[in-house]
Amino acid sequence: MMFSPQPIGYVKSPYQNTKEIPKGFGAKHEAEGVLEILPEFELGLTDIEGFSHLFVLWVFDRAEGFELFGIPPIDDRPHGVFATRSPRRPNPIGLTVVELLRRDGRILHVRGLDMLDGTPILDIKPYLSSIAPESLRRGWMAEAEVRRRE
Amino acid sequence: MMFSPQPIGYVKSPYQNTKEIPKGFGAKHEAEGVLEILPEFELGLTDIEGFSHLFVLWVFDRAEGFELFGIPPIDDRPHGVFATRSPRRPNPIGLTVVELLRRDGRILHVRGLDMLDGTPILDIKPYLSSIAPESLRRGWMAEAEVRRRE
Repeated sequence: MMFSPQPIGYVKSPYQNTKEIPKGFGAKHEAEGVLEILPEFELGLTDIEGFSHLFVLWVFDRAEGFELFGIPPIDDRPHGVFATRSPRRPNPIGLTVVELLRRDGRILHVRGLDMLDGTPILDIKPYLSSIAPESLRRGWMAEAEVRRRE
Repeated sequence: MMFSPQPIGYVKSPYQNTKEIPKGFGAKHEAEGVLEILPEFELGLTDIEGFSHLFVLWVFDRAEGFELFGIPPIDDRPHGVFATRSPRRPNPIGLTVVELLRRDGRILHVRGLDMLDGTPILDIKPYLSSIAPESLRRGWMAEAEVRRRE
């Protein structure tokens, strides 16, 4: 029923250490870098250059274990792991939306990275539609943002 | 470096068969159902009720193998798997944005399911922001949509 995850490629990013990655409210993820796909998966990239944005699924390969309830860096109160973007998840899978700048064969040049250099990539999917901002509620994150500004 | 995927819960959806799932342009995913999280992970749901929308990562547990280049149901031309939402991916992970209607303990009532009944869930993350629709390009999907309408 389950499967054995295998990398389809690796991220080349400017971040060598998690402390370098911008976090918190208004953190802009403008970092540019590349998604380097392994040669045996290059055929799967056909026509990807037509999409402006991509979902990247990847592995928190330097996180250890998981914590169901903990204090995230942007708050002073604990929250459930599924209500946060903590790396310490039962299945350590990260999700990032990146802007595709250009493709050179099996190299995707992207903007918006928030992964460490060398992060294994599991999957890439086209980003097709958005939830309208006026329909979004952001729970504790919106509340913590207000408290932080007060 | 990799990990062993484990289900954190299962989807209860109205779909028993992939043929029942709406596909193609303008397909509305309005199906309601539940994400039933296993008791040992319930603590991780703390504060999730504050979010209107969630990312759900799940396993295409009834897909076999992968196909790097193939014809999707909504086109008559082949595309690379990473430019499609095909279930036959190197890592068979699905991604769905759902609207959270309410939480009853470890049961999340949601709208927008496109998974089969019994699908294993890998992760849930809060949906925090959207790409503005005017910035999105949808590549071959937009082109195929135009051809289909001509």
